[in-house]
Amino acid sequence: MLVDGKHRKTVWFESGVLKMVNQPLLPHSFEIVELRSYREAANAIKTMVVRGAPAIGATAAYAMALAQLAGEDLQIAAQVIKKTRPTAQDLFYATDKVLQAAEAGGSAIEAAREIADDYETACEAIGACGADLIDDGASLNTHCNAGWLATVDWGTATAPMYKAKRQGKSFFVYVDETRPRCQGARITAFELCHEGIDHAVIADNAAGHYMFRGDIDLIIVGTDRVAANGDIANKIGTYSSAVVAQANNIPFYVAAPAATIDLQCPDGLSIPIEERGAEEVAYMFGKDESADRIARIRISPESSTVKNPAFDVTPAKYITGIITERGIFKPAEIADAFSSR
Amino acid sequence: MLVDGKHRKTVWFESGVLKMVNQPLLPHSFEIVELRSYREAANAIKTMVVRGAPAIGATAAYAMALAQLAGEDLQIAAQVIKKTRPTAQDLFYATDKVLQAAEAGGSAIEAAREIADDYETACEAIGACGADLIDDGASLNTHCNAGWLATVDWGTATAPMYKAKRQGKSFFVYVDETRPRCQGARITAFELCHEGIDHAVIADNAAGHYMFRGDIDLIIVGTDRVAANGDIANKIGTYSSAVVAQANNIPFYVAAPAATIDLQCPDGLSIPIEERGAEEVAYMFGKDESADRIARIRISPESSTVKNPAFDVTPAKYITGIITERGIFKPAEIADAFSSR
Repeated sequence: MLVDGKHRKTVWFESGVLKMVNQPLLPHSFEIVELRSYREAANAIKTMVVRGAPAIGATAAYAMALAQLAGEDLQIAAQVIKKTRPTAQDLFYATDKVLQAAEAGGSAIEAAREIADDYETACEAIGACGADLIDDGASLNTHCNAGWLATVDWGTATAPMYKAKRQGKSFFVYVDETRPRCQGARITAFELCHEGIDHAVIADNAAGHYMFRGDIDLIIVGTDRVAANGDIANKIGTYSSAVVAQANNIPFYVAAPAATIDLQCPDGLSIPIEERGAEEVAYMFGKDESADRIARIRISPESSTVKNPAFDVTPAKYITGIITERGIFKPAEIADAFSSR
Repeated sequence: MLVDGKHRKTVWFESGVLKMVNQPLLPHSFEIVELRSYREAANAIKTMVVRGAPAIGATAAYAMALAQLAGEDLQIAAQVIKKTRPTAQDLFYATDKVLQAAEAGGSAIEAAREIADDYETACEAIGACGADLIDDGASLNTHCNAGWLATVDWGTATAPMYKAKRQGKSFFVYVDETRPRCQGARITAFELCHEGIDHAVIADNAAGHYMFRGDIDLIIVGTDRVAANGDIANKIGTYSSAVVAQANNIPFYVAAPAATIDLQCPDGLSIPIEERGAEEVAYMFGKDESADRIARIRISPESSTVKNPAFDVTPAKYITGIITERGIFKPAEIADAFSSR
């Protein structure tokens, strides 16, 4: 999508080099990182230079391609890549798919490009399906960043917004800042600024207030994994948002490309939830404008313990529908719809 | 309560000077501010050097005393003081009470001391009532800071914890960090560290996850105003917490001294909700350890709008009980119980 009026993608392969947007620097500066080995790419996933389930999937695929180009042992490369993060289904899906293609004698880079292109096509199709949900004049809410910077392009939760905008609809988005890493305040807000969509950043705590006041018509979030029973895992805070949405009769949609659906996983409680480092909660990072640099500041006392679950599970009963590239399904319909994948 | 093993209060009057803990510096440094005029005291309320409904009430009372000592027009002083913040009932209650005492020919400082002492007594009594709710081995959750630093001493939501601790009970507290100003991560965590109570700071987004997992037995929060029908206003995010608690059958208690109960206010929607500055969400402040100073960092893009409602309304139907100095009442019982005040 657009950055300063120019079309950009999140991650791409060019002249033997894997390139991606350096996301921890957003929104303060827009920089491209170049990665030349699968280990560098795996590290970029682990340290969240790239994040978002589909963007992780595309990066993992290209990481496998880097491994093949360098003549590395692909089994070992796949193991290293899959160990970087535990929750996003796309990581395992994409790594295994390239591994299989390569072991069948194919080109890893071709397989990786196909995965990245599939994500892009899927996200655009999600946008086309989901745009119908957005009425002219509507107020939306989203959590975290399931935007183009979480995918290759278009985004999942944001794709319906970008399509609706191009259809000439006018609407407003309440953007949850999404502590602890503030992907909403930093990345979703950055995207919406550059796409010219009206929005306001709010503390996560304020979303329920606006739902209660009748100020939110529709919620769309992304997901890191959809289980066979229609439960989903997504960024921490999604569960509370869904519960409060239901209490206020607000439709709650989850946008998910097929690669995010894991029919081997029976239900949400079977999805591993990543516990990330305490420093993500104890500290915040951002731009110290007085010193013109990215700084890290401590919030909580040094002697306080911190717990930092990165994701939570939203049971299917709170989800109005799952927006996929093949249409919008009720959570209970997902297993049948995608069993022949 | 305790700071480095020494008993401290939040706000007190000494040798003609109003003294208080400088709360924006917590937990990084513990400093006392001295205020010599009612305008300085009003400004301390407005800029949140002191915050928390009962601590605001005590400060407003002492501010009126400073006005009388300086021979100021007390009507004007009361107007200036009451304009500092709109939501906390205690501000209006305490200011008017001292004004009435002074206009009846009494000493404002004596009236103010009585209000501060009443808060302290009420909070300790809330602690005694509420401690029975805390079982040995329980896991609690609280939002924002309704601790001793939000009152004169003991706190409201924390008073049951401090009493239970002195009764020899062992328990654990999940502390919501409470964006945007992080009074949970900064102040409640500071209090619990110094009182030796086991706790973990969590992102506000994580509270629902722990409720869903069955890790939280009891929630106690404070309040800025209780309406006649038992609805309450409290720090933004309280509403969502209460809704998710009910979905998980977790008891949700509100601790409130009588001064916080406003029977003139029929219901929650009649409570004015303060909209605070965008910079509280767009920026975070904390300690830059590399420079050993308090720094402010920008999180969201400069071109993004921000909305920052400081409080929300929790309808009575989500509240298990209101813990007061006269016992624990169901929300529907509040009007009868306190109508003779």
